[in-house]
Amino acid sequence: MRGFSPDQIIGIGVDTTGSTPLPVDRHGHPLAFDRRFAKHPAAMAWLWKDHTGIAEAGEITALARKLRPQYLAKCGGTYSSEWFFSKILHCLRTSPEVFDAAYLWVECSDWVPAMLTGTEPPDQLTVGICAAGHKAMFNDAWGGYPDAEFLSQLDPKLGALRSRLRSKAHTIDRAVGGLTLEWAARTGLPANLPVAVGAFDAHLGGVGSGIAPGTLVKIIGTSACDMMVVPVGDKLPDIPGLCGIVPGSILPGHYGLEAGQSAVGDIFNWFVNYIQPLGKKAGSHEALSAAAAKLAPGESGLLALDWNNGNRTVLVDQRLTGLLLGQTLYTTPAEIYRALIEATAFGALTIINRFVEYGVKVEQIVNCGGIAEKNPLVMQIYADVTGRPIKISRSGQTCALGAAIAGAVAAGKSAGGYANYADAQKAMTGLKPRIFQPNATAHTVYKELYSLYRKLHDAFGTQQANDNLYPVMKELIEIRNRARK
Amino acid sequence: MRGFSPDQIIGIGVDTTGSTPLPVDRHGHPLAFDRRFAKHPAAMAWLWKDHTGIAEAGEITALARKLRPQYLAKCGGTYSSEWFFSKILHCLRTSPEVFDAAYLWVECSDWVPAMLTGTEPPDQLTVGICAAGHKAMFNDAWGGYPDAEFLSQLDPKLGALRSRLRSKAHTIDRAVGGLTLEWAARTGLPANLPVAVGAFDAHLGGVGSGIAPGTLVKIIGTSACDMMVVPVGDKLPDIPGLCGIVPGSILPGHYGLEAGQSAVGDIFNWFVNYIQPLGKKAGSHEALSAAAAKLAPGESGLLALDWNNGNRTVLVDQRLTGLLLGQTLYTTPAEIYRALIEATAFGALTIINRFVEYGVKVEQIVNCGGIAEKNPLVMQIYADVTGRPIKISRSGQTCALGAAIAGAVAAGKSAGGYANYADAQKAMTGLKPRIFQPNATAHTVYKELYSLYRKLHDAFGTQQANDNLYPVMKELIEIRNRARK
Repeated sequence: MRGFSPDQIIGIGVDTTGSTPLPVDRHGHPLAFDRRFAKHPAAMAWLWKDHTGIAEAGEITALARKLRPQYLAKCGGTYSSEWFFSKILHCLRTSPEVFDAAYLWVECSDWVPAMLTGTEPPDQLTVGICAAGHKAMFNDAWGGYPDAEFLSQLDPKLGALRSRLRSKAHTIDRAVGGLTLEWAARTGLPANLPVAVGAFDAHLGGVGSGIAPGTLVKIIGTSACDMMVVPVGDKLPDIPGLCGIVPGSILPGHYGLEAGQSAVGDIFNWFVNYIQPLGKKAGSHEALSAAAAKLAPGESGLLALDWNNGNRTVLVDQRLTGLLLGQTLYTTPAEIYRALIEATAFGALTIINRFVEYGVKVEQIVNCGGIAEKNPLVMQIYADVTGRPIKISRSGQTCALGAAIAGAVAAGKSAGGYANYADAQKAMTGLKPRIFQPNATAHTVYKELYSLYRKLHDAFGTQQANDNLYPVMKELIEIRNRARK
Repeated sequence: MRGFSPDQIIGIGVDTTGSTPLPVDRHGHPLAFDRRFAKHPAAMAWLWKDHTGIAEAGEITALARKLRPQYLAKCGGTYSSEWFFSKILHCLRTSPEVFDAAYLWVECSDWVPAMLTGTEPPDQLTVGICAAGHKAMFNDAWGGYPDAEFLSQLDPKLGALRSRLRSKAHTIDRAVGGLTLEWAARTGLPANLPVAVGAFDAHLGGVGSGIAPGTLVKIIGTSACDMMVVPVGDKLPDIPGLCGIVPGSILPGHYGLEAGQSAVGDIFNWFVNYIQPLGKKAGSHEALSAAAAKLAPGESGLLALDWNNGNRTVLVDQRLTGLLLGQTLYTTPAEIYRALIEATAFGALTIINRFVEYGVKVEQIVNCGGIAEKNPLVMQIYADVTGRPIKISRSGQTCALGAAIAGAVAAGKSAGGYANYADAQKAMTGLKPRIFQPNATAHTVYKELYSLYRKLHDAFGTQQANDNLYPVMKELIEIRNRARK
């Protein structure tokens, strides 16, 4: 470690991906470290982007709709294949030998702090409300995790697991414990350093981007997370399509609201790496961005849906796929590249609109993450499509910064940290000077294109009676002809 | 000229593209050859694929719908921007100096025989029924071309042109005249050789492929033409969406039925030449065909519409565009290439179904043209999608062969030719030995995919109440999952 001295470190915060549950034994050791399961995929961490539990997610949603609608109301109306119980139930069904060997399932964001502090499950384990609340239907309103009766109807073994799950979940303003001697030795840090309750990278990215009521923080990388907070006590309805409304999941004392897009940068990467238009050099992100930047909104006549990896918000449906429409015999790769960027911007606008429709004011948008850092064309298109200024978080590592803030708050003011998140965010977060302002002319065109996007979105993504789609191709041609004049 | 002696030539047949009208002066000389107009695009031949008269086509269709519905009934219900009067009216509106300088407009297929035989318009010009009937609403039932009153309502100048148009149109079993001395000298052929009435390349391609009642001939190149004949006297209803039902337009004594696809090979060429997936080498037609041939039907999860250049049959709508659906983050160029081939096969099936729905029996399919010659993958997919054997015309140049047959019939039996088309076709046409047989398993999958294609086709291409499109992406995923097992 260079540039600082270990004694400058006053606390540790942990962020991980999620829902990323690990099957562990009765001491908290991952089964993957057990020789018997060393090569068994089901014994490894079930990564957040794993959708294999799609049938189980459908089953959980259907059962909850029937017996426990309140469970669904707080997670947007649909339980996702990406989440905790879908994965565990899928393991139970497809790799029962792993399920049977697991004493407990622990979210990665809880497991890392537990390991650093030597707190063993089940009794000593501290569960963070971020993972439990957003991905495992944990809510104090019904006594924590889904009840045993409900889980037993999915499978009696899942019901039996319920008794080993914790009854409380915690916000990130407290410490799980202190750094063990072993980890102090391995890291060169002081023993007993406070380790904060863990949370997901996106949520701590929100913290590191200065999230506060009215500020939408959007982390854009391969996929995107959209986060907002609302003070607990403010009136807040259930919002269909959101990934969760969880008290304290982002900032203590605030509801954490999470939405997201299943793929953003991944769609651009697919086009560049899988399709490889124009070959590797002429079809690089840089070359395509430069060519796409020269196009006017609507000029390509193309319209796309950003569903190559399904739709997280507002449809919560993985069984959706990409769509590209408007191709002629002269359509170019740069036009397609721009259409894909625009599609993700339309997806972003759909999320903003959903917040606003349910009374959550969006006063400013702060983007962060790899794409926000690296691609000004994408940011300008987001400003033009949303008609709102797009600000960029100052830090290039907002998730790590958020975790550092958690460490500083866990340490407390007396140790040189902060008494609360508001103070810590004020001191530690900020924005870049460049703000992407919407261009009014571009926004006017994008309003037209967005209304066509919504027609496709609703036609393929909802069971509502369809708008007639006959005008879609014709209106795109009209818009194109006007843009080319 | 090698390999034969000029005195073996007993007659000349002419096929050209169409509708390809040329503005000519009072001696039949194209205005393009006049110095004043040498660089004026509107004075050149208006190529068949020119769609600039789209507004005028709409105007003609609307007026005919109101005043002369019978005109539309014989050309599928919509007058196309590709056709004779749309182009002339567009010239009148946008380049009046050319229109005013033109004494007459002559189809290329009439102009070439006229030039070879020295027959000058308007009085000596022989008009072929193929071009006039399919593209210019010529029908003996209403006295030839559309009447002056109708044309005058579009523009009085168009009405005035009517008096210079011929009142009769002829089938290809007669000669326009004999080869002039000038052309005999230029070509080295005997003077006075009979030159047959001209026709479109596709229609003579039908003749050269052995077209007869029950045989659908499909010429597949950059676009596709589908042709059938029905004996005059047989009951034949008007068929919506066809490019025309014209007595004698293909074979004398038979109704000629023309349908078509606005782009087939052009769509594959677009993907290879404009998108250039994987770069030039790995993304060649050969490489993509080889990779696509390894895929099972439905395996890609993709579905496309073949409308990159609009839809000729059965929608008769140029204001339609391409669509690709089902993309994931792993979709490959070969999968897209195959989906584009399949889309053109679904378009082909839609045409076959339209014939059958209106009582025209399709007993065999004979394909010809560049794609039929060169790409066995495309032919196999056509067999699998249609569920019918696909035969290939023996000649690699069926249009030229059809023209040669016309020359042989114009010459007559006494000159060493044939007395009629049946005899000439029997002697001069044939099939290749390889027949592409449909695979039953593949056909079953394609039946499912085609029903989804029809949903998209009807949703974007018709004003009918839409089927709900919500199941489309989900069913494609189901089909894909089954195909991958």
